Amino acid sequence: MKTRIEQLTNYMDQRAIDAVLITMPKHVYYLTDYASDPHERFLGLLMVRGAEPQLIVPALDFEAAQAASSVKSIHTHTDTENPYEVLSKLMPTGIRTLGLEKEYMTVSRFEAISQAVGAAVYTEIDEPLREMRVIKTPDEVVRMKHAVRIIEDVLRAGIAQVKPGVTEIELVAELEYQMKKLGASGPSFSTMVLAGEKSALPHGVPGSRAIREGELLLFDLGVYADGYASDITRTFAVGDISVEQAKIYQTVLQANQLAIEATSPNATLASLDQAAREHITAAGYGPYFMHRLGHGLGMDVHEYPSVHSQNQDLLRSGMVFTIEPGIYVPSVGGVRIEDDVLVTDHGVEVLTSFPKELTVIGF
Amino acid sequence: MKTRIEQLTNYMDQRAIDAVLITMPKHVYYLTDYASDPHERFLGLLMVRGAEPQLIVPALDFEAAQAASSVKSIHTHTDTENPYEVLSKLMPTGIRTLGLEKEYMTVSRFEAISQAVGAAVYTEIDEPLREMRVIKTPDEVVRMKHAVRIIEDVLRAGIAQVKPGVTEIELVAELEYQMKKLGASGPSFSTMVLAGEKSALPHGVPGSRAIREGELLLFDLGVYADGYASDITRTFAVGDISVEQAKIYQTVLQANQLAIEATSPNATLASLDQAAREHITAAGYGPYFMHRLGHGLGMDVHEYPSVHSQNQDLLRSGMVFTIEPGIYVPSVGGVRIEDDVLVTDHGVEVLTSFPKELTVIGF
Repeated sequence: MKTRIEQLTNYMDQRAIDAVLITMPKHVYYLTDYASDPHERFLGLLMVRGAEPQLIVPALDFEAAQAASSVKSIHTHTDTENPYEVLSKLMPTGIRTLGLEKEYMTVSRFEAISQAVGAAVYTEIDEPLREMRVIKTPDEVVRMKHAVRIIEDVLRAGIAQVKPGVTEIELVAELEYQMKKLGASGPSFSTMVLAGEKSALPHGVPGSRAIREGELLLFDLGVYADGYASDITRTFAVGDISVEQAKIYQTVLQANQLAIEATSPNATLASLDQAAREHITAAGYGPYFMHRLGHGLGMDVHEYPSVHSQNQDLLRSGMVFTIEPGIYVPSVGGVRIEDDVLVTDHGVEVLTSFPKELTVIGF
Repeated sequence: MKTRIEQLTNYMDQRAIDAVLITMPKHVYYLTDYASDPHERFLGLLMVRGAEPQLIVPALDFEAAQAASSVKSIHTHTDTENPYEVLSKLMPTGIRTLGLEKEYMTVSRFEAISQAVGAAVYTEIDEPLREMRVIKTPDEVVRMKHAVRIIEDVLRAGIAQVKPGVTEIELVAELEYQMKKLGASGPSFSTMVLAGEKSALPHGVPGSRAIREGELLLFDLGVYADGYASDITRTFAVGDISVEQAKIYQTVLQANQLAIEATSPNATLASLDQAAREHITAAGYGPYFMHRLGHGLGMDVHEYPSVHSQNQDLLRSGMVFTIEPGIYVPSVGGVRIEDDVLVTDHGVEVLTSFPKELTVIGF
């Protein structure tokens, strides 16, 4: 298998891009295995066609870069040195086209780089990096399964704390504590615990009202671990719930299962959204499923592809995304059931394994 | 007093900048009172010399913008419309110089804007905005005092939970829960609770070891509330501590007080750092105070000015920054004492009021 640096080199050859400068820390990690947070300091991976790739790192990170990076030619700059002068010295003369992450780089930095380098053309390389990232390697899948395992253990610990009088924000505190305890680097987004009428808000904010019997209780949470994200939603019944709440639950669960069954290479992303949406619409809840089915998952918790009704892109083996249909009925409550799935050569592997049958907790 | 929009208009007049486009949500809030998080959608405040300012917001945010914004001419774009076309229609012909936040704007967005607008010159307006933000208005000071009051209540609740067996990450969970409960929008940075040898790491990460008697216990925490940040550090003794630990504590406390006493209009920022550093050096701990004295505080938890030994900028009434000397001795422990201070017309007002005398907690 080609290394990621080789894949990017191929792309440069095809497009006659003379050099590429990568400055997003996640992309440097993706291409070299060197993870860092340089804050406002300059970090760059310079790839010039026909030459060995080179890293430019803050001087205080030199040892860390040397230990972790697959790129072994490492240059440094101290806080009193100008990193763009270092870049200028490393850049061969006659570079016509330089590739940059235009969706990430600020105009200030771009101006400093273009002054130092003086290329004729600056072209975007966001798209080829997105294209590489969308197909997960076996190693990435291992990391994502690890992030999923952590979040499922966190959820198990969290629901054990549901008892009379507990509030949404107390459960959030418990869940985020468990994340750290179980080795996550942190939540991959703002942890959501929403009860009763709040569960009917797809983007509600946890509050300090005590959870009551007869309510739906929705948990949406994820972590970053080893650089990769997980994301899961489960909804529970607190004590006895109404017939309509139970019907909503079963409808969402079936929609989730139908979308998973529709997941296989060469299906369109739109067809998955449709499979879930048609079922929900047939049950009479169409207007209450007002968001897309899911989103790509990887080094970012939201990344390409977007799983919505207009996306005609085809599923490919190695894609990872969420399947998360929901029904939100004001004053009745909301249900969302979210899994993380991997497209395989012949179908789908569901990475999340937390039970989905309607479960009564607490009280 | 001039409104912020009038101040920016003056700047445009002086520099012959024909128009300014503000896209950073915090700056839109600062100039119009309209706070929002548009995610990847386009938000812009367009100021053209000689014309009324205009807002461009996502269609779904129209009502919120109308309710909050002091700018009453509001244009919208839906997810299927191109916001740069809206911008292009609003921009009068003959705009030569357009001011942009170059330290914030991505190259992709800049390319879309420059295509839509076609100005001859794009100039940075990061500096004048920084210059405006550094002097806090009375209203901003009220908000910052509110953020300080919340974090001091949070800290009080947190130290009440220190008892045998409690771990650093359990205390972090309790503190972040209290932040939400007391009405903060969230932590202003990653909450730090560091005990024993960990307290000697200025950037340590809380872990799951139980806190022990005889240790120093350092809390560094802050919140965002109503758009403004607070930031406080206090260090406590867990039971009896050693003579050297107590000496370190008193040295840091005196350095903190000397820097506060040195704070008044027209002093240099460097002189504050020096006041603290000379005292620590005289006590023999110079090499163990290896960071700057403090940083500006406002809508960002780290903003201009930087309070370090080389900054010859003068203090001005209305500046708010932290004063946070520390001594970190490996295997003995670390102490940092951090206050938030406001430069007044004749001296200084210390915004933080949490007691600073050496206090024994727990056990």
